[in-house]
Amino acid sequence: MRKGEQTRQEIIRKAAPIFNQKGYDGAALSDLMRATGLEKGGIYRHFSSKEALAAEAFDYAWQATFDSRIHDLDTISNTVDRLKLFVANFVERRGVIPGGCPLLNTAIDTDDGNPILRERARKALRGWRSYLISMIRRGIKLREIRSRVDEKKLATLIISSLEGAIMLCRLERNEDPLHAIQVHLNNYLQTEVRVPSK
Amino acid sequence: MRKGEQTRQEIIRKAAPIFNQKGYDGAALSDLMRATGLEKGGIYRHFSSKEALAAEAFDYAWQATFDSRIHDLDTISNTVDRLKLFVANFVERRGVIPGGCPLLNTAIDTDDGNPILRERARKALRGWRSYLISMIRRGIKLREIRSRVDEKKLATLIISSLEGAIMLCRLERNEDPLHAIQVHLNNYLQTEVRVPSK
Repeated sequence: MRKGEQTRQEIIRKAAPIFNQKGYDGAALSDLMRATGLEKGGIYRHFSSKEALAAEAFDYAWQATFDSRIHDLDTISNTVDRLKLFVANFVERRGVIPGGCPLLNTAIDTDDGNPILRERARKALRGWRSYLISMIRRGIKLREIRSRVDEKKLATLIISSLEGAIMLCRLERNEDPLHAIQVHLNNYLQTEVRVPSK
Repeated sequence: MRKGEQTRQEIIRKAAPIFNQKGYDGAALSDLMRATGLEKGGIYRHFSSKEALAAEAFDYAWQATFDSRIHDLDTISNTVDRLKLFVANFVERRGVIPGGCPLLNTAIDTDDGNPILRERARKALRGWRSYLISMIRRGIKLREIRSRVDEKKLATLIISSLEGAIMLCRLERNEDPLHAIQVHLNNYLQTEVRVPSK
């Protein structure tokens, strides 16, 4: 049993970059066999279907990606500075799972089909939004963030602009778009979100 | 010859939504046959490969999408108002080709492979960026836009935030993210980009 669970986790870990790079339809059984060193039967003994494996691989890739984005956030007490570190982590700590952002990839890949995988992406987005919204609400309560800031809209701005910039960076193979968004968000956080010091 | 070209265009037009919704790998020959009402030979008499057909289908989808985004822009003389109408068109005039933004879909679909199609997406992004950059430069020259505005960074902000918001809207099946970005961009254009009237 323990050996079986280890093998299962190993398959998920090795399948994650393949699904993230090639997409659900593009990830061939031969790719999964090559990466895991297992035959078809060895893989599908542990998963009921390709969809089931892809869903676990997405959760694994997303957890690793999200962890890198919130790296060291708990060392910062001021919530505006914490949002800035979140943005900096997003820009600098990429590539944990090769192939770009698993959420962006999976959202685009499944928006016209594949409901199981789509539901995982939705759950990931909701978790991320809730995380930012809680942080912003806490900042408003602590009077670090202006009370007129709409926490949902600010979370949407951060997520949309950073994820959109990933698309540009990956298409152009150039980091400039993410750096431009980081500057924009930092300025906005500083001038429109932070409570001015007296 | 003329009949052949008509059939070719008809195949492109009918293949475009399929590639846009299902992605390159997900678009099966059976889908293309069903949509066009043609057999395999009838389709591939006009295209050297699936890649070649997908590239033409992308160009067609992008042209239709871009045309809807620049709808009526030439009726607005002030460049800041023109940028605002661009944003409004982006938010309101969607769905010309079912399946979301062809640029976002194709960029994500091809960033780890499929160089022919990737090159078309890159060309589309460059054309779009250049279009916005020219408009912003014109505004600076006409003293409608502040001279300190960096035209490349502003173009990146508009493209990234709108494209990222599409991902959120499509995943949540909810228009709020695009509306939130529209409000943010309009405020930014009004307060940081427009030359204040004396």
